[in-house]
Amino acid sequence: MVRINENYLKLQASYLFSDIAKRVSAYQEANPDKPIIKLGIGDVTRALPKVCIQAFHQAVDEMADDSTFRGYGPEQGYPFLREKIAAQDFQARGADIKADEVFVSDGAKCDTANIQEIFATDIKVAMPDPVYPVYLDTNVMAGRTGDLENGRFKNILYLESTRANRFIPELPQEPVDLIYLCFPNNPTGATISKTLLKNWVDFARQNRALILYDAAYEAFVRDESLPRSIYEVDGAREVAIEFRSFSKTAGFTGTRCAYTVVPKDCGAYDSNGGRQSLHALWLRRQTTKFNGVSYPVQKAAEAVYSKEGKAQAETLVDGYLKNAALIRKEMTLLGYECTGGDHSPYIWVYGNVDSWKFFDQLLTQAGVVCTPGEGFGRCGQGFIRFSAFNSFENVQQAMQRVRRALSK
Amino acid sequence: MVRINENYLKLQASYLFSDIAKRVSAYQEANPDKPIIKLGIGDVTRALPKVCIQAFHQAVDEMADDSTFRGYGPEQGYPFLREKIAAQDFQARGADIKADEVFVSDGAKCDTANIQEIFATDIKVAMPDPVYPVYLDTNVMAGRTGDLENGRFKNILYLESTRANRFIPELPQEPVDLIYLCFPNNPTGATISKTLLKNWVDFARQNRALILYDAAYEAFVRDESLPRSIYEVDGAREVAIEFRSFSKTAGFTGTRCAYTVVPKDCGAYDSNGGRQSLHALWLRRQTTKFNGVSYPVQKAAEAVYSKEGKAQAETLVDGYLKNAALIRKEMTLLGYECTGGDHSPYIWVYGNVDSWKFFDQLLTQAGVVCTPGEGFGRCGQGFIRFSAFNSFENVQQAMQRVRRALSK
Repeated sequence: MVRINENYLKLQASYLFSDIAKRVSAYQEANPDKPIIKLGIGDVTRALPKVCIQAFHQAVDEMADDSTFRGYGPEQGYPFLREKIAAQDFQARGADIKADEVFVSDGAKCDTANIQEIFATDIKVAMPDPVYPVYLDTNVMAGRTGDLENGRFKNILYLESTRANRFIPELPQEPVDLIYLCFPNNPTGATISKTLLKNWVDFARQNRALILYDAAYEAFVRDESLPRSIYEVDGAREVAIEFRSFSKTAGFTGTRCAYTVVPKDCGAYDSNGGRQSLHALWLRRQTTKFNGVSYPVQKAAEAVYSKEGKAQAETLVDGYLKNAALIRKEMTLLGYECTGGDHSPYIWVYGNVDSWKFFDQLLTQAGVVCTPGEGFGRCGQGFIRFSAFNSFENVQQAMQRVRRALSK
Repeated sequence: MVRINENYLKLQASYLFSDIAKRVSAYQEANPDKPIIKLGIGDVTRALPKVCIQAFHQAVDEMADDSTFRGYGPEQGYPFLREKIAAQDFQARGADIKADEVFVSDGAKCDTANIQEIFATDIKVAMPDPVYPVYLDTNVMAGRTGDLENGRFKNILYLESTRANRFIPELPQEPVDLIYLCFPNNPTGATISKTLLKNWVDFARQNRALILYDAAYEAFVRDESLPRSIYEVDGAREVAIEFRSFSKTAGFTGTRCAYTVVPKDCGAYDSNGGRQSLHALWLRRQTTKFNGVSYPVQKAAEAVYSKEGKAQAETLVDGYLKNAALIRKEMTLLGYECTGGDHSPYIWVYGNVDSWKFFDQLLTQAGVVCTPGEGFGRCGQGFIRFSAFNSFENVQQAMQRVRRALSK
């Protein structure tokens, strides 16, 4: 009798975004004359940079001719892309990362979801609350958790991000093995200093733990003193894997390209205490289960590293940051405590009321869609998340409506 | 202490293709004036169909303008593609498959690798020998096997495909839970009749087992009496998941698009014997761990279903089949027993000598690269695989050289 992976039965159905969609469509049906503005989902809205479009077209043309056609590429990505990533995203910032430590993929979601496969199932995992749900759900599916009780899975250490700690969790008081961190954070928009990040690296080194560092939003960092990569911190090469994406940097959410860095010094242990190379394990995983990113997509991503590409991608991010600044300013003027929005496309707003109540108020009184914080975990209760991914005009109009609704 | 998934340590290093590469480059260094012809790897060599190129360009242009730009798409694929797949690949052939049972992905390799995640780890798996190594390696990684002993993993039932059974394995004599089948087969090129496939479906129904049916090479089938999908067999909807790809059909190995069919009737059991929907489980897996295929790639794949697209893809496949027929004819004339090459791009040649010896003879005496059969499993010993993926001119020249070498 073929049996299922019963860990899936522990998962909660993913009601958050379908609940949001239901409430939004109910409102729209009742108010067909009131157009809504969506500042909910973290999806970009603006066209790809021009250089990416040009490179994309050129590569498609290469696929049209037998003499330039490309079949299977390297599972880890083409050297032309890996080399630029290593040189410009890392070496140029003093982080010692080589091209063959970069694994190109079709998404940071896939990589942050798949990475747990190379670790034992009976290790202790720590992850933030609030959290990007993929980290949690994939560990549930793999059987690293117990059942759900009072909204939390047993055997997970939740790293609470709260107003009290300014949304940077404290170091664990107990040993943990695998630690998920994300800065600039989704959903809170919080950033971390090199000093505080160094504490996490030191903790991992002392406890023979490993950090999975999600830096998908690093392009939004505008303060040069803040780290954009964990490898800017001494000692991180041995204890950290980093995830990056072209999704938010260059608008690739629908085009699909990302990468993961696994330094060759990075290790984990076998049951005899022998140190094993995580680079070798991830390489084995990717060459066995993945077949590389579409060649034209890799060429489009490579274009981001040209002089014009960098300028165009920065303009794109600047646009979203201008939106974020406006949202933050308006919400602050209205008396709300805000995090993020300065080096992040997300603004985490403390409403001091039930998340869903705040969500409903903004929907029905302002026609604006946000995301209720409790969808990201228990510590999100009382908060909402605004996303800056929209046109400046829509964000301006949304904030006018929010002001009118909340000033009543 | 963070520990690794020790199942990875059971895997053999994947020496096959690196061994081949080493022998080829040693020969090339020693014989710089003798160009070699590669009939080894199963990778296409010809340009994408023209309609795909046009659709690809148009979709890239849509990504260049805010008003037509696409961000995240549905993880399962866009309806425009899923609907055409269901209608043309299945309903048109009398197989009752609906659009929402089709999951678009970036590769059949990924899907055949990932599918095992939704099953329990302590089930009994049966798979062919010789075999596409991904089926085996991913089950080793997941812990469904014991250690490797004499070239075989414990707790796997190997379904032997031999000259005696004309490369269609017999039904298991013991209960098994998960059964991998692939027709037209990689590496043997063998096809299966509806009658024999019905035996497997009946076996699965009687034993509450599930069939994972890899139909990546279905486009090569030219005999209308042979099934191109397992769903052409009555009763398969409840007990089979099918994998398809645009890689070999339309030359997408470097472009990346495939799909998996999980019928809503398809089930597996929980430990209480309750029947669970595999459609729901795979949907949960894909929405959690995958973010959809690049939008321009999906548009390029959709073009295959236009009238011109179908004709162009068929021309592409016809070209490879012409190569395959030539290889089969020449090797048969030389006195070798051949399987495949008629409804498959692979020709499985019985050399009745050590695989590697045969490989070396063809390399050093003819300058032609094939794949030694034992790389696919114990039952591949004594065989080599020729792949028809090359230009007709190269295949002609290769066969002239092989004839001269083997007639000596």
